[in-house]
Amino acid sequence: MRENDFIETIKNIIGDKYIGDDCAFLKDLGIVVSQDSLVEYVHFSLEYTTPYKLGYKSAMVNISDISASGGEGKYMTVALSLPKNTENDFVEEFYKGLKDACQGIEIIGGDITGSDKIMISVTIIGTTNGRKISSRANAKEGQVVVTSGVHGSSAGGLKLLQENKNLSSNLVERHLMPKAQVEFSEKISKNIKEDYAMMDSSDGLADALFKIAKSSDKTLVIDFKKILFDKELKEIFPDDYKNLMLYGGEDYQIIATVPEDFAKTYGLNIIGRVETKIENTPVKIINYNNDELIIDNLEKCFNHF
Amino acid sequence: MRENDFIETIKNIIGDKYIGDDCAFLKDLGIVVSQDSLVEYVHFSLEYTTPYKLGYKSAMVNISDISASGGEGKYMTVALSLPKNTENDFVEEFYKGLKDACQGIEIIGGDITGSDKIMISVTIIGTTNGRKISSRANAKEGQVVVTSGVHGSSAGGLKLLQENKNLSSNLVERHLMPKAQVEFSEKISKNIKEDYAMMDSSDGLADALFKIAKSSDKTLVIDFKKILFDKELKEIFPDDYKNLMLYGGEDYQIIATVPEDFAKTYGLNIIGRVETKIENTPVKIINYNNDELIIDNLEKCFNHF
Repeated sequence: MRENDFIETIKNIIGDKYIGDDCAFLKDLGIVVSQDSLVEYVHFSLEYTTPYKLGYKSAMVNISDISASGGEGKYMTVALSLPKNTENDFVEEFYKGLKDACQGIEIIGGDITGSDKIMISVTIIGTTNGRKISSRANAKEGQVVVTSGVHGSSAGGLKLLQENKNLSSNLVERHLMPKAQVEFSEKISKNIKEDYAMMDSSDGLADALFKIAKSSDKTLVIDFKKILFDKELKEIFPDDYKNLMLYGGEDYQIIATVPEDFAKTYGLNIIGRVETKIENTPVKIINYNNDELIIDNLEKCFNHF
Repeated sequence: MRENDFIETIKNIIGDKYIGDDCAFLKDLGIVVSQDSLVEYVHFSLEYTTPYKLGYKSAMVNISDISASGGEGKYMTVALSLPKNTENDFVEEFYKGLKDACQGIEIIGGDITGSDKIMISVTIIGTTNGRKISSRANAKEGQVVVTSGVHGSSAGGLKLLQENKNLSSNLVERHLMPKAQVEFSEKISKNIKEDYAMMDSSDGLADALFKIAKSSDKTLVIDFKKILFDKELKEIFPDDYKNLMLYGGEDYQIIATVPEDFAKTYGLNIIGRVETKIENTPVKIINYNNDELIIDNLEKCFNHF
């Protein structure tokens, strides 16, 4: 986990006031901000995707960060670094995808420079607009853990692309054109009264659960049977689908901890509970192969580094 | 000028409301935003600079964009893409440089991912804070053209680095650790009453003059003798210093058009005047080798692509 080492180093220099959540919440300006980069051959390959889908996903990844904060996306800047031989068609299709994903979010420019690989860095600015902003550190005992949808599909889709099979599978589409869970996020942030934790599953479900537990100093007890997955995932990967569900990245589902009555009122899918911290047990998964699974580190989690 | 082709394509898709200035001005939020990327071997090489200086410059480049808008820098996000073998020391020194350049601007996080070259993408958010925000399209007849300092030094410094000579020259320092012209910008944006054009010379003086002239549909007449330069630049590059002054990038000086009495009141260095558009003559430089020089395209200008 080199990324986490670097983050520790950075915290020591600039402090940790804003580090930890998907977005930085700038209270004085009433805005939330996030920046995410996609690097060719690390996050994507044009062997598998198209410029249009790449643009679409680049926007969605960032819209998901705003959703994870509870804010409302408003503006986006885009820095593109492109190899010398890049065709104008690439830029055109990329921006069409970006714009189609944005739906009401205004793209306000950015920067284009040269490079040898394609690099995309998107910054998104959202407003609080009367909503309650989340923090990973806000999970409270007695709250339930909810998620917005299925897990593991994107990682399954990526496997299919890499193995060049079942390319018409819905899993592949979920990998290439994920949807940010804007409505799910709004349902919570517009209606909830008490503090709540929220994250997206960009680095996987286990990663999100682990980070919420650690930041909040709680134990999350999750019932594996309650976690949703695409039927296709189990059919295509009968031996591996459970791993993909927990550790596969890029589903961009929302994970949140909210009061139980709130979850029931709004019909949210409950997968577990927030409990008093159990030593060395940030996340306990029950009903996993008729056993318990403890997640106490991020070694197995999705890591783009 | 592939970059400009791409920008045209992008304008056709997302519109041109925010495209053109160094920053996007989001009136509803009272903020200005800019994003700029630096790519290894395109914008910098660790053969010439240090991680600390690279961090410092990465921040300054973006602070300069805010200064060019007339806004006040407040927050910065940083996306780093780093090769697998990057040492923790690099991250530490980079962030120290970044922080030292920031002076009151808060670094609010960002993103770290893998890549094969170092890529840095910084987004800066500023507030209007009662200041008047500039636009490149605001140059008016009768205004004078002012600049904040010397031109050509950074490009001269880069040449010295590339030729591995005179490494203790002030020019080298100007290239590696440029200073954003925050005070010059504030003097204008805090005090001016009428609309004004302003840009930084990140891509060179000629580029800035040309873009202001084109965006404002005016002709800028510049007296070459009034343009400031480092004495060292002429001494080290007797045959080339004039070219470097006009076309060399990365000086991060501010170029603005303001009323003449305003320029005199605040002691600003006047280098020329805004005049009614002369066909095919966006920029006319007088007293250049006892002749006139017309700049009617950006072919010779600094281009990172």
